[in-house]
Amino acid sequence: MKVDILITNGFVVTMEGRGVGMIEDGAVAIKGNRIEAVGSSYDIMREYKAEHVIDAKNKLVMPGFIDAHIHTGLSIIRGVAQDMTNWMQKGIWPFSKHVTTDDYVKGSMVNIIEGIQAGTTTFGDYDGHMTELVQNYIKIGARARVAELVNEIPDNVGDLPVGELYPFHSSIGEEKLARNIALMEKYNGIENGRITSILGPHGPDMMSLELLQEMKGLADKYDTKLHMHVAQGDREIDQIEKRYGKRSIDFLEEQGFLNERLIAVHLTEATDEETERVAKSGANMIYCAGSIGIIDGIVTPMLKFIESGGTACLGSDQAPGNNCNNMINEMKFAAILNKVKRANPAVFNATLALRSATIEAAKVLGIEHEVGSLRPGKKADVILLNLEEPSFTPVITSPVRNIIPNLVYSARGHEVETSIIDGKIVMENRKILTINHKKAVQDAQEAANGIAERAREDILEAESDILTMMREGML
Amino acid sequence: MKVDILITNGFVVTMEGRGVGMIEDGAVAIKGNRIEAVGSSYDIMREYKAEHVIDAKNKLVMPGFIDAHIHTGLSIIRGVAQDMTNWMQKGIWPFSKHVTTDDYVKGSMVNIIEGIQAGTTTFGDYDGHMTELVQNYIKIGARARVAELVNEIPDNVGDLPVGELYPFHSSIGEEKLARNIALMEKYNGIENGRITSILGPHGPDMMSLELLQEMKGLADKYDTKLHMHVAQGDREIDQIEKRYGKRSIDFLEEQGFLNERLIAVHLTEATDEETERVAKSGANMIYCAGSIGIIDGIVTPMLKFIESGGTACLGSDQAPGNNCNNMINEMKFAAILNKVKRANPAVFNATLALRSATIEAAKVLGIEHEVGSLRPGKKADVILLNLEEPSFTPVITSPVRNIIPNLVYSARGHEVETSIIDGKIVMENRKILTINHKKAVQDAQEAANGIAERAREDILEAESDILTMMREGML
Repeated sequence: MKVDILITNGFVVTMEGRGVGMIEDGAVAIKGNRIEAVGSSYDIMREYKAEHVIDAKNKLVMPGFIDAHIHTGLSIIRGVAQDMTNWMQKGIWPFSKHVTTDDYVKGSMVNIIEGIQAGTTTFGDYDGHMTELVQNYIKIGARARVAELVNEIPDNVGDLPVGELYPFHSSIGEEKLARNIALMEKYNGIENGRITSILGPHGPDMMSLELLQEMKGLADKYDTKLHMHVAQGDREIDQIEKRYGKRSIDFLEEQGFLNERLIAVHLTEATDEETERVAKSGANMIYCAGSIGIIDGIVTPMLKFIESGGTACLGSDQAPGNNCNNMINEMKFAAILNKVKRANPAVFNATLALRSATIEAAKVLGIEHEVGSLRPGKKADVILLNLEEPSFTPVITSPVRNIIPNLVYSARGHEVETSIIDGKIVMENRKILTINHKKAVQDAQEAANGIAERAREDILEAESDILTMMREGML
Repeated sequence: MKVDILITNGFVVTMEGRGVGMIEDGAVAIKGNRIEAVGSSYDIMREYKAEHVIDAKNKLVMPGFIDAHIHTGLSIIRGVAQDMTNWMQKGIWPFSKHVTTDDYVKGSMVNIIEGIQAGTTTFGDYDGHMTELVQNYIKIGARARVAELVNEIPDNVGDLPVGELYPFHSSIGEEKLARNIALMEKYNGIENGRITSILGPHGPDMMSLELLQEMKGLADKYDTKLHMHVAQGDREIDQIEKRYGKRSIDFLEEQGFLNERLIAVHLTEATDEETERVAKSGANMIYCAGSIGIIDGIVTPMLKFIESGGTACLGSDQAPGNNCNNMINEMKFAAILNKVKRANPAVFNATLALRSATIEAAKVLGIEHEVGSLRPGKKADVILLNLEEPSFTPVITSPVRNIIPNLVYSARGHEVETSIIDGKIVMENRKILTINHKKAVQDAQEAANGIAERAREDILEAESDILTMMREGML
């Protein structure tokens, strides 16, 4: 049978079954934007022919990573808010007040390139201005599951004293909700299904009860999920307690949010009992290891969530306050931080990390029928990594195999050479084929120069830890 | 004045002073194997001329990283011992019994390449067979501060029931000590001073009191340091308690080891009080964040050591059970794991991480007069990183600067493009110039194939967690 792309002779990790589904001398046949067949090289090469054959000898062939929670726009202010207290108020906001939609779009494009270069093929992008940011995914050819970040709070909320209730402006909420609805109505399923949309309430503390309930109704109407920060910090718990007299999880349960429609991001402040309650409700969880480690110095209850029967996965969050967006890095962090949390090296292994960045992430985002593993009929999102890089050397296959541990604990990201998304080669030999990478970097740099200039006074006024470090020659 | 290499127009991080010593439009002049001058591009370019000028526009120029504690030979069994209990007995030993000296040499070379590709220029290599491994450094042109791993225990000690006292064989000790002495007598200061040697007792539990005292005497004789694992695990504490009736630190103090000659590696099991005692004695400490995180699920007391007035730095340890050797990765881990340990995001910042991988590491190894910062008269170990990679984009310089946080928290390693060691360009455009990189990888792969075959029975007999995972399709 004739197919479009044949990948042969590789170590194929399908991520099917309970483990990693390794086929040692494996092949993948791709027809159009779908996987036609997966199996041994011998079987596949006997049955399928293609013009485009990729010899994957000494390569790892696997489903692309799914970054379930990322704010790509924010990468335009990468690296301005870490090693500090009050990172949002004093780190992010003095900058973000001065970022234009065009700036966000330019930052987002570099962030997507960064992700693709480390093997991400699906981006769970959750950010403002998404009807604009989504154009980047259309152009570069990556898969995205987008949500507009909907809230009712003004940009200058950072100027409020800590502890004071956020003001809600219904006009802000209406505008943002309109963009989320536009995503659902006009973008969901475009580009041959490569772009899909879900709903993105910013958090239970970020909008009025009315708007929160309206979004819950919309989730039913569109039969979709709610991607939402939940118990993401003591700030949130404080706001909810002041407003409703209870903690976030209790509030969300009372309001009917604890069910399979909810993707609960972070759960930083959730107690064990609350975590268990969310997990048992059928809601899913996303853990952002690097980000919450840097911002809060906390390991969130992902393991407890899984032990309670829940489905959880990984996300890289945002560049100012994780600084990078690299799922290989997130896998390593997730594993080690949980080992340290439990003081037990066996408690979170490489396999769990890898599943959490592929098939489990597909489940959390509600797209496991399309991506997350290599199976005939699924979308053709496939990456190839070079096993002859020092980080993978040597390859040992019997009686134990070291490829998965070295992928999770040793690889850096640049081992990813080829990225096929929706059946199209988006990156080959580490070169992005679909857009001008160099120009994207230059555009983002120019945008950032403007932001830094406009934000100058606010940054100086914020008197943040970062500013002190700058003055002391530490940066 | 005529010099050999002129690096101009870069962001020069000198690591001089208390912070990072940034010169925004800086230049470095190199003559022979020494730094001739460092300053603004304007000043340096007016005063110095060179045939070889490297335009470092949009590059970060800095001292090469110092990996203070690495066992390069062990990388020949990278990735065979993680996510498990009894990692040394059941993970490492079934393999390592079958590794030949030639295998170690081949593994070591790939490990050194891996380090150089992530910016390491000085390797604090601490391993067996060092008179052989050191040949790799001579060939590839990296700086090394080597020590032979001296112990008196046989290779099959892993077969002993856990808790039983190790047998000591003086013939083993004599042979290993002879190699360490050979390093001191024949290799210390060779290659124009690029290779230097120190002493490497494996640990207080790994040899007889007589040999330990002999090595202490040799440290005085050669006026050098003792690179030694100290309180590296409950196994060590147990052995020392059974043998001498006290804990490791008490034992070492009693035996006169707590002073500025001691480089105490790990201190995994040291209490706060013990940590403080070691720090105040003038001894130094090395923290291996990734390795001890993976192997033990522990964050060792590096911060407590520094707070007690001690000097501490970072090392990447060994590839089976850290899986990689990348100082950028170690910096990120060290910072985040300590933030999590203290539940405080400000407690370990990017500047401390960077200092711990450069100038502080030079102090710990006793070579701060030669390397660790860019200062006229020091050895010319300089790396250049590309700031136009997505991980560094955008570069913001005023009123706060984001380069150092993005180096520590965002860079992956492949941003390092050029590595100059001892005034010679060892890597250019990411290509190693001094040896055949591809052949080194192939040689290591072939060696590993042989080991896996020879070790087969022992691995099957060990019935390790890894073997179970393999059988269950998790690897």
